[in-house]
Amino acid sequence: SSSSKILIKGGTVVNAHHQEVADVYVENGFIVAVKPHIHVGDDVTVLDATGKFVMPGGIDPHTHLAFEFMGTETMDDFFTGQAAALAGGTTMHIDFVIPVDGSLTAGFEAYEKKSKKACMDFGFHMAITKWDEVVSKEMEIMVQEKGINSFKFFMAYKGALMINDDLLLEGFKKCKSLGALAMVHAENGDAVYEGQKRMIELGITGPEGHALSRPAVLEGEATARAIRLASFINTPLYVVHVMSIDAMEEIAKARISGQKVIGEPVVSGLVLNDSWLWDSDFLTAARFVMSPPIRAAGHDKALQAALSTGVLQLVGTDHCAFNSKQKALGIDDFRKIPNGVNGIEERMHLVWDTMVESGQISVTDYVRITSTDCARIFNIYPRKGAILAGSDADIIILNPNSSFEISAKSHHSRSDTNVFEGRRGKGKVEVTIAGGRIVWQNDELKVVPGSGKYIKLPPYNYLFSGIDKAEANYLASLKAPVKRTIISKA
Amino acid sequence: SSSSKILIKGGTVVNAHHQEVADVYVENGFIVAVKPHIHVGDDVTVLDATGKFVMPGGIDPHTHLAFEFMGTETMDDFFTGQAAALAGGTTMHIDFVIPVDGSLTAGFEAYEKKSKKACMDFGFHMAITKWDEVVSKEMEIMVQEKGINSFKFFMAYKGALMINDDLLLEGFKKCKSLGALAMVHAENGDAVYEGQKRMIELGITGPEGHALSRPAVLEGEATARAIRLASFINTPLYVVHVMSIDAMEEIAKARISGQKVIGEPVVSGLVLNDSWLWDSDFLTAARFVMSPPIRAAGHDKALQAALSTGVLQLVGTDHCAFNSKQKALGIDDFRKIPNGVNGIEERMHLVWDTMVESGQISVTDYVRITSTDCARIFNIYPRKGAILAGSDADIIILNPNSSFEISAKSHHSRSDTNVFEGRRGKGKVEVTIAGGRIVWQNDELKVVPGSGKYIKLPPYNYLFSGIDKAEANYLASLKAPVKRTIISKA
Amino acid sequence: SSSSKILIKGGTVVNAHHQEVADVYVENGFIVAVKPHIHVGDDVTVLDATGKFVMPGGIDPHTHLAFEFMGTETMDDFFTGQAAALAGGTTMHIDFVIPVDGSLTAGFEAYEKKSKKACMDFGFHMAITKWDEVVSKEMEIMVQEKGINSFKFFMAYKGALMINDDLLLEGFKKCKSLGALAMVHAENGDAVYEGQKRMIELGITGPEGHALSRPAVLEGEATARAIRLASFINTPLYVVHVMSIDAMEEIAKARISGQKVIGEPVVSGLVLNDSWLWDSDFLTAARFVMSPPIRAAGHDKALQAALSTGVLQLVGTDHCAFNSKQKALGIDDFRKIPNGVNGIEERMHLVWDTMVESGQISVTDYVRITSTDCARIFNIYPRKGAILAGSDADIIILNPNSSFEISAKSHHSRSDTNVFEGRRGKGKVEVTIAGGRIVWQNDELKVVPGSGKYIKLPPYNYLFSGIDKAEANYLASLKAPVKRTIISKA
Amino acid sequence: SSSSKILIKGGTVVNAHHQEVADVYVENGFIVAVKPHIHVGDDVTVLDATGKFVMPGGIDPHTHLAFEFMGTETMDDFFTGQAAALAGGTTMHIDFVIPVDGSLTAGFEAYEKKSKKACMDFGFHMAITKWDEVVSKEMEIMVQEKGINSFKFFMAYKGALMINDDLLLEGFKKCKSLGALAMVHAENGDAVYEGQKRMIELGITGPEGHALSRPAVLEGEATARAIRLASFINTPLYVVHVMSIDAMEEIAKARISGQKVIGEPVVSGLVLNDSWLWDSDFLTAARFVMSPPIRAAGHDKALQAALSTGVLQLVGTDHCAFNSKQKALGIDDFRKIPNGVNGIEERMHLVWDTMVESGQISVTDYVRITSTDCARIFNIYPRKGAILAGSDADIIILNPNSSFEISAKSHHSRSDTNVFEGRRGKGKVEVTIAGGRIVWQNDELKVVPGSGKYIKLPPYNYLFSGIDKAEANYLASLKAPVKRTIISKA
Ligand SMILES: [Zn+2]
Ligand SMILES: [Zn+2]
Ligand SMILES: [Zn+2]
Ligand SMILES: [Zn+2]
Ligand SMILES: [Zn+2]
Ligand SMILES: [Zn+2]
Ligand SMILES: [Zn+2]
Ligand SMILES: [Zn+2]
Repeated sequence: SSSSKILIKGGTVVNAHHQEVADVYVENGFIVAVKPHIHVGDDVTVLDATGKFVMPGGIDPHTHLAFEFMGTETMDDFFTGQAAALAGGTTMHIDFVIPVDGSLTAGFEAYEKKSKKACMDFGFHMAITKWDEVVSKEMEIMVQEKGINSFKFFMAYKGALMINDDLLLEGFKKCKSLGALAMVHAENGDAVYEGQKRMIELGITGPEGHALSRPAVLEGEATARAIRLASFINTPLYVVHVMSIDAMEEIAKARISGQKVIGEPVVSGLVLNDSWLWDSDFLTAARFVMSPPIRAAGHDKALQAALSTGVLQLVGTDHCAFNSKQKALGIDDFRKIPNGVNGIEERMHLVWDTMVESGQISVTDYVRITSTDCARIFNIYPRKGAILAGSDADIIILNPNSSFEISAKSHHSRSDTNVFEGRRGKGKVEVTIAGGRIVWQNDELKVVPGSGKYIKLPPYNYLFSGIDKAEANYLASLKAPVKRTIISKA
Repeated sequence: SSSSKILIKGGTVVNAHHQEVADVYVENGFIVAVKPHIHVGDDVTVLDATGKFVMPGGIDPHTHLAFEFMGTETMDDFFTGQAAALAGGTTMHIDFVIPVDGSLTAGFEAYEKKSKKACMDFGFHMAITKWDEVVSKEMEIMVQEKGINSFKFFMAYKGALMINDDLLLEGFKKCKSLGALAMVHAENGDAVYEGQKRMIELGITGPEGHALSRPAVLEGEATARAIRLASFINTPLYVVHVMSIDAMEEIAKARISGQKVIGEPVVSGLVLNDSWLWDSDFLTAARFVMSPPIRAAGHDKALQAALSTGVLQLVGTDHCAFNSKQKALGIDDFRKIPNGVNGIEERMHLVWDTMVESGQISVTDYVRITSTDCARIFNIYPRKGAILAGSDADIIILNPNSSFEISAKSHHSRSDTNVFEGRRGKGKVEVTIAGGRIVWQNDELKVVPGSGKYIKLPPYNYLFSGIDKAEANYLASLKAPVKRTIISKA
Repeated sequence: SSSSKILIKGGTVVNAHHQEVADVYVENGFIVAVKPHIHVGDDVTVLDATGKFVMPGGIDPHTHLAFEFMGTETMDDFFTGQAAALAGGTTMHIDFVIPVDGSLTAGFEAYEKKSKKACMDFGFHMAITKWDEVVSKEMEIMVQEKGINSFKFFMAYKGALMINDDLLLEGFKKCKSLGALAMVHAENGDAVYEGQKRMIELGITGPEGHALSRPAVLEGEATARAIRLASFINTPLYVVHVMSIDAMEEIAKARISGQKVIGEPVVSGLVLNDSWLWDSDFLTAARFVMSPPIRAAGHDKALQAALSTGVLQLVGTDHCAFNSKQKALGIDDFRKIPNGVNGIEERMHLVWDTMVESGQISVTDYVRITSTDCARIFNIYPRKGAILAGSDADIIILNPNSSFEISAKSHHSRSDTNVFEGRRGKGKVEVTIAGGRIVWQNDELKVVPGSGKYIKLPPYNYLFSGIDKAEANYLASLKAPVKRTIISKA
Repeated sequence: SSSSKILIKGGTVVNAHHQEVADVYVENGFIVAVKPHIHVGDDVTVLDATGKFVMPGGIDPHTHLAFEFMGTETMDDFFTGQAAALAGGTTMHIDFVIPVDGSLTAGFEAYEKKSKKACMDFGFHMAITKWDEVVSKEMEIMVQEKGINSFKFFMAYKGALMINDDLLLEGFKKCKSLGALAMVHAENGDAVYEGQKRMIELGITGPEGHALSRPAVLEGEATARAIRLASFINTPLYVVHVMSIDAMEEIAKARISGQKVIGEPVVSGLVLNDSWLWDSDFLTAARFVMSPPIRAAGHDKALQAALSTGVLQLVGTDHCAFNSKQKALGIDDFRKIPNGVNGIEERMHLVWDTMVESGQISVTDYVRITSTDCARIFNIYPRKGAILAGSDADIIILNPNSSFEISAKSHHSRSDTNVFEGRRGKGKVEVTIAGGRIVWQNDELKVVPGSGKYIKLPPYNYLFSGIDKAEANYLASLKAPVKRTIISKA
């Protein structure tokens, strides 16, 4: 069944730019042909997709597998997390390499090791947590040799990952010089720290304290700051996990003025609200602790709306799964609850249900926000993110008339809970093909550790197009330096 | 030379979703293949496009050829206007049918006649200038039989084309029911009328009075009104000729909230400013009279910025060419100056220079805003707007290292002036292929009256995707009607 | 007890610009002295205000007493409505004269008659419901002879009071020429009409249909339109009953750009939300029907916030009381429910509780938004709206440590219901002095029909200050008309 | 002539809340009576103010006299600067005490010494430039004993005065606890530093580099940040020298949402633009160097508009005068040009001309923005900022029909240049009375060193009104801590 030759017949093939009824023929891991009425021999596995959508596999731009964080490590490693992803129709993800004691090289090597067991394709972003000449030099190596084209800066997590404006400016300049995309986790870390102290002083030690200590205004602040500093440096910016109206509106404002800013909502922010954090059961509430926090009802709908019209561009998950035992580390102090929620398996279904079934977007838009724009932004389109001849055979078949239901009992993550527990909806990923092999069919996974490839992400994506010209035009517009005579008349 | 078989070799083939070096093979008016290293026989005309961009021909969404307006008729008819278009790299346009005494049928027939001499493909929008059951019925016929999928409502031109909110609401409802796109010319016509009177009373009878009588605030007002009424009816909206920050910001605001609104800047609004209207030579000033007016410097840059990030989507021209003699009708009263400027020939060059050469957008974006998005919005993609196997062979070859210069002396419009006179820039359309034939090469036009086809535009474009579901969800959310007992407790 | 000489001792005397502990001495209807330690003879009634606030009586800028509307007449006439007002600490109101068959003169005479039984001071606004030379001339008479300095235009109530943009522009111009303030009821009447039809078609005939048929977007639209047209005419604008974020944000935006726009929230909009309209008891729900409708929760808080910082300026009530029998006229069709809620008696208490007790504003701000700014806008400050020597003796004593509770059982309106039923809060008006007489004390009213005076409101309030200069500067800035030679060079 | 008894007859007496024709009688430094037709004896100096405005003397909230900065000291000390102020109708100012090596006490003592020669009343703000327990304790002493009620935090001047977010949060909390007003100089200092380096690298070493190195986006950023952090701490904020649309719009946005933020434009920002910085004469250009920089044309008008409607509240000067020799310190490097412009003498005239003569505001507004609101914000109203019986006799007589002209030749500052050189306008301060003495009349100054008093500014101004209640309401709204059982169900 996991033959290297597959024909998908009769489905509606959807790319971000167009949909049409056609057959898709796959061989040796690649899409060979996309056209009506393809005829093949007996050695070909034929999948009937009549009445269904044949789409590029999802690409999750934001995950944390095998992530050591807050004194523990996420439940899902590169095998279990990816297996879950495949079961949910996601065929590639980009994970965040965390430097080891500030060393990018050591961090990269650690993640190379962790990812050996990969069962689907993946790429890496890299976090920058300190600044010196070594880091600066390592950034070059990462971009020019290691396949990294994006660097993330944490404006929060004071005392741990957080960097200040000084480093942010240096980092942005370096990114620009390398054609690498600057990313930010945007919350004001100093204020969050203050907010946390305040909550503890008020005796608010439970999960609701997490939300209260870092309100949306602090996300809006940091987003505004990062955007304006990126504008000042004139380099594109990618804002990860946009969780609030406050942050979204800053992105919208920048885009209206022509600035190249990408906003990534995550599925938890799109479909959940913060009422769970007030649940009287600690573990139920703790499950929903992530940063920036899931916001009050209203933010979710506003993010959906912005996503529907391209104000925000692509959907991630920030998949960072901890189980109940780990979450219980913060039983007496919300500051010790490991931050993170699941989503890598659920994203494709929830986005379909929330955005397409609700009538907010078209199916082509769905492909764009779950796959194509991610491939374009990280510069691997149309190898990924498309159903085109020549593209990698990462494909899903989604049945719009079938339905899904989410539960920790049936999910493939190793976590014992699921923040989307009990959620049902229309649209079901019935088949996932990754790298040309059928890995998910009839609710069964067939995945092999080590079968996933590391995908190098080249620098200078489309956002960098024209930056040199724009800069030259800007400089020419300054009418400076003014030529001045030595002797002053005043 | 205008063989039916053409091979374009070695160029960078650009679609809105991707660009790559490839050959393009054309036969019988269609693109047959797009791939590297196509080998062909001797009967094929081979064009070397090495170092050049091979792109879909431009589609101009907004023109007025052979338009009877303000007591005169535009200089360019369907032959001369289209010839000019082809010389500038535009291979299709959509013109506005004006009803005859309110009759859509009569209007359509008149435009069928006018367009007999077409030398390139074209489609029609239809204006709605009054409302009754006949008009309502004719709209159905236009959509279902005649290939019209968009209707334009004039919120200005009091006493002539202008309609009121009542009609706008009826029209929007009808459009929605037919899957047709509602379009608006957005200026507050009552206020414009008042402004005109005021200017005359102030003794301001020259072209500067045109700008002063209808400031941007009136465009912003009408744009806001049309958007909110469209939201109220829940139907997509297309705002033609967005000329001001005021209007653009209303569109941006609506899009942030998830509303489906399309904004069309025109090339005159993108690259000119209103200083010309103050020129001391009447005819020079009068040349720039169009409505809404070309705005003060600042609006142009802001519109460019919004266009660069997708806040506005596609570029038109509102090509509506009058010569000096016609413009002179308003020598004593700006209200009698025929409204309109040229652009159909200049659009592709000016957008390239202003947007791509300036570094504001990528080449793929260029294709999107000059061709693909127009094809998608008017529902003929990928027949038009793409360089894909199967698409119509409407193709341009643009040399980014060549340059253009605009002058009435050399342009192909029949008008004796050009609002872009003297403008130079980089990037030159060296070859235009329309319907599979080379019509522009070596600065020579080879066009044949009657060779252009009328392209029917089908209803229910992508903006209508999900509208039914969204509406059903909305109705379900109302919690109404409330069930009430007959006897009241109060 | 209702002596003509009163000394209020030891209270905190509050004006909008300052508060201080002082005594207030009143004689013959006027405030004679405001200073510490006033000593008086035995013939003076002495009120101890120690620990209490002595403030100008409230002025309600928006009421409808004895108003014939929707086939019935409000329960409260000039006597009962004013008596209720006095019991709640309001000592003056401005009512809307409605023309009779378009005649301002006839309307004015009718209201003169109705107001004969007045027991407190009052002024008049005048509605304009049609346009011709007679109306234009009558406006002059009203302003120059009759004491009217504001005219209201209804952008809703299609087929009844509604006017179109044409009339609005004419009206604004006339107002400007007379130094009279233009006011608008801002909802898009055409769209409301459409919305009403739609609700009926959907079978939604109950009070919730009222809210659903005229959503906030229609209030935002009309507010934006009125503001921009007023800007175009360059005359100040007063927006009555600002009920939504949509309208408020338009006012804020205009003010940021320097436009003279006044926004009046009403107490029902500040403290209620639309959930009542979904009440399963018809009469309970119908009680809350007013236009624009009371909005969803969230609008109330946003209006409070805007009021707290001066984005909105003063609070009205739109008091327009109908009893249950009248409300029942719409039992089968919400369109027939007489529009209107009470508030004239409750305003002062609810604003205190909602704005001062909540910590949003200071006591001086309270005086400003309930009294002083109304007096300034309608040009009778410091005769009204101040506790200054020489001002009319319209005074309240409010005990911040006492409390109030609202109920139809105890209120003084003739209506049998109260939209604020059951509401309690801190702060109680213990004494009301109107025209120098104690009319409310120890929860007892002492009012005399006919004791109220008609207060003429003079034109050219402070908002008109500088309008001529600004206009002259604007005209000078036009650089028009351009001087042009007869012979053109083109 | 400088008798202690003065009668000002027949003028229009203007307070922020009201204007009326009245006489003003002054004795022993205080205003004794304000009413029509005051009759006095022969020992009283009588000034005829018929046809003129009698107004509270200006209060400049933002000055730097005898300020040691950037290696030099301002030209104007407490005597010459105040003399200039009095000649221009300003009778009080509030200067910034700069700590000495971080010590508030030492700083205060230094300024006590400097101000010994004062010839008019003055108060102090205090800058906070580092943070530790000593500083925190000194803040208490300053507020409780020394008469300081405002503390300023510099977000720019990296390596010198600049503080980071951490300190800002601590400072805001301390201010809140003391009832003291937090003030910010809002520019992103890290980015400014980066911008300066960039300009030098580009070879732009002249004054234009000053503007280019710190664009408006950096002022907008810091303003947004300070506002949101103040919101997070829930304490009022005062933004000094609002120079740009970017900053103003952040203030407007905050105020719309109910936040207590005060915005202070300065006269240079209101009436100048940055074109001077491109002047080919170094000293001419250098004269205009201040921070944040004077902005491009357009910002000035927008700030005026916002000021006219109360979006911004009061006007300062940031008077910080350096002469040509001092400015020449930066001949080779704009970073060494001492930052600062004059204004203390010109403010009253320029605000009159720009705001009143232009028709943008009324005369009462003029009093409010030049005097009353400053007195209210710094909590000394109505002692200052009013023409009321009991107020200090700080009074000006302004003749609206006279005119002024500004020149370094005639001004009273010790600086050899004037950024407003050559500016003329209508409205002239003909008489200044300070502390009950006529100090400016017939273009002559009569001032005595040491005659000025230090005015203690008490904490808890009106902006603090209700803060405790609001905070209590906020805490009550949190529904936290959630009561949780020990044993979790998950
Ligand atoms: Zn993060
Ligand atoms: Zn993350
Ligand atoms: Zn038009
Ligand atoms: Zn047109
Ligand atoms: Zn109304
Ligand atoms: Zn009303
Ligand atoms: Zn400063
Ligand atoms: Zn300063």
